[in-house]
Amino acid sequence: MKLWDIYATMKQDVSYIERELERTITTDNELLNEASLHLLKAGGKRIRPVFVLLSGKFGTYDIEQLKRVAVPLELIHMASLVHDDVIDDAETRRGQLTVKAKWDNRVAMYAGDYIHGKALMVATELKQPEIHRILSKAMVEMCIGEMEQIRDFFNTEQSVRQYMLRIRRKTALLIAVSCQLGAIAAGADRRIDHALYRFGYNVGMAFQIRDDVLDLTGTEAQIGKPPGNDIRQGNLTLPVIYALQDPELRRPLLTEIERIRELNGETDVNEALDMIRKSAGIIQAEQLANRYTDKALSVLEQLPNIRARKNLKDIAHFIANRSH
Amino acid sequence: MKLWDIYATMKQDVSYIERELERTITTDNELLNEASLHLLKAGGKRIRPVFVLLSGKFGTYDIEQLKRVAVPLELIHMASLVHDDVIDDAETRRGQLTVKAKWDNRVAMYAGDYIHGKALMVATELKQPEIHRILSKAMVEMCIGEMEQIRDFFNTEQSVRQYMLRIRRKTALLIAVSCQLGAIAAGADRRIDHALYRFGYNVGMAFQIRDDVLDLTGTEAQIGKPPGNDIRQGNLTLPVIYALQDPELRRPLLTEIERIRELNGETDVNEALDMIRKSAGIIQAEQLANRYTDKALSVLEQLPNIRARKNLKDIAHFIANRSH
Repeated sequence: MKLWDIYATMKQDVSYIERELERTITTDNELLNEASLHLLKAGGKRIRPVFVLLSGKFGTYDIEQLKRVAVPLELIHMASLVHDDVIDDAETRRGQLTVKAKWDNRVAMYAGDYIHGKALMVATELKQPEIHRILSKAMVEMCIGEMEQIRDFFNTEQSVRQYMLRIRRKTALLIAVSCQLGAIAAGADRRIDHALYRFGYNVGMAFQIRDDVLDLTGTEAQIGKPPGNDIRQGNLTLPVIYALQDPELRRPLLTEIERIRELNGETDVNEALDMIRKSAGIIQAEQLANRYTDKALSVLEQLPNIRARKNLKDIAHFIANRSH
Repeated sequence: MKLWDIYATMKQDVSYIERELERTITTDNELLNEASLHLLKAGGKRIRPVFVLLSGKFGTYDIEQLKRVAVPLELIHMASLVHDDVIDDAETRRGQLTVKAKWDNRVAMYAGDYIHGKALMVATELKQPEIHRILSKAMVEMCIGEMEQIRDFFNTEQSVRQYMLRIRRKTALLIAVSCQLGAIAAGADRRIDHALYRFGYNVGMAFQIRDDVLDLTGTEAQIGKPPGNDIRQGNLTLPVIYALQDPELRRPLLTEIERIRELNGETDVNEALDMIRKSAGIIQAEQLANRYTDKALSVLEQLPNIRARKNLKDIAHFIANRSH
């Protein structure tokens, strides 16, 4: 079953969330509107809202309640993408981006802040302070994750554990919270929201590892951008950390990473990519991703056997096997 | 009565808030710690927490409750300062800032996001969803205000009304909300929190107008930076808008502003400052600020005559007359 087939079964509600997303961030300020809607219109898998809706099926499904967590979760994700665009001078010079007008960095920054704020405004329409607490905590953890990523740029001594903690904060928690809050907003049993949290967490870990593998192994046609973006930036992901553990590969790979660092990423990274692709790092990373997927699937077994459970299972499989 | 004399009467609680601010943003991530604490240690008037505490005196004063709005409000203000530091290339080139390390813009941005998130985390410990809603709305309005400021850079056709709407969002609302939430967190009567909101709003408007006047008339010794910062940036404040209404001054001032714009602010702005200082714009702006202060003071008359009311009055006077 493809992702869109699953979505098709809940088409009406997914479209409703889409309209609500647009309605929420629309404002009289044209500059803000342009910056915010630009990203929204670019689309995306809307995986977080879909997890909210499916999780809501385990309680009293009410789209009017669920939208108040589905919309914020997608907006928090979007705000993090907007802020990723606020880049430093070096990256501008690399020429990957169109020349920006004088205040563009500021616009991206305030647009991100605005979307963050709007996310919380929507959630606070729900009279459950617990939901507000969980959402704001997720925002904080994501920021710490982003900062850990910056801190660890080009750190060739980092451990697998460090990488795990980082992607947990950067990615997995928000997906975990999407599942959890869908259940809470639908008034589901505590045991159910805990289980859905763990499902989302494990899916999120698998998702990010898969994403990191694709950045190393994917073609430009598959991933929509040239591969090797992460290593160019200094973001050393799981396959790289594994590859560095290979005694024969370690020395040449270290040299190559150091060369990329010295050139600020403004260089061909194909040699590094070749080394990593030939190493066992890719397979090892994929195996770990599969273990997370397996864990996610086994958590599902604890949930009532309703159609949403089947859908969640299909999505977990899709994420594990996706090539884009 | 000086500001510090007023603070002296509540020294213990102000110090407690100070410690809580530090405790709240301290984290294991060193980079984040450094960036966040740097700004905290730089100090500030802590006017927002002080308004929270004084407003709390009109209800059941409980510092443990009040800190959960006082800390977030100061943090939201701090986060906006951190994000103001995320500047575009032109400003970096102007050399007003020390050379930044490669990722400094990102660090400032994520540090601001982190502080925002922490602010909301602290507030959500209170079980009053209304408070969460008011805070997140204030964050959104502030962002819109910042974007309006960017939109209106060098816009010599803007009206006084446009300026008012902008500073209302950018500054006055957060001060209004500080007073309002102090009262709500202390369980004060609805009429009281409404009155305090209006007091804070009017004080906030007077505060920002005064700030904008000082940027044009203050000495470097008084304001801690060379005057004319706003006009260099293209931020045309109330005295400038008034000065542009002077038929004799309009033409030469427009020419001078256009020159500054063309040079991206990287020029001497003394001629523009001279023109504005000699115009009636400064006095007119001060008169408007005084009207806001008067309104704030008259709102206070509706409140119970307790010591906190006298303190709020003194702070309003201090803000109206400050020269730094």
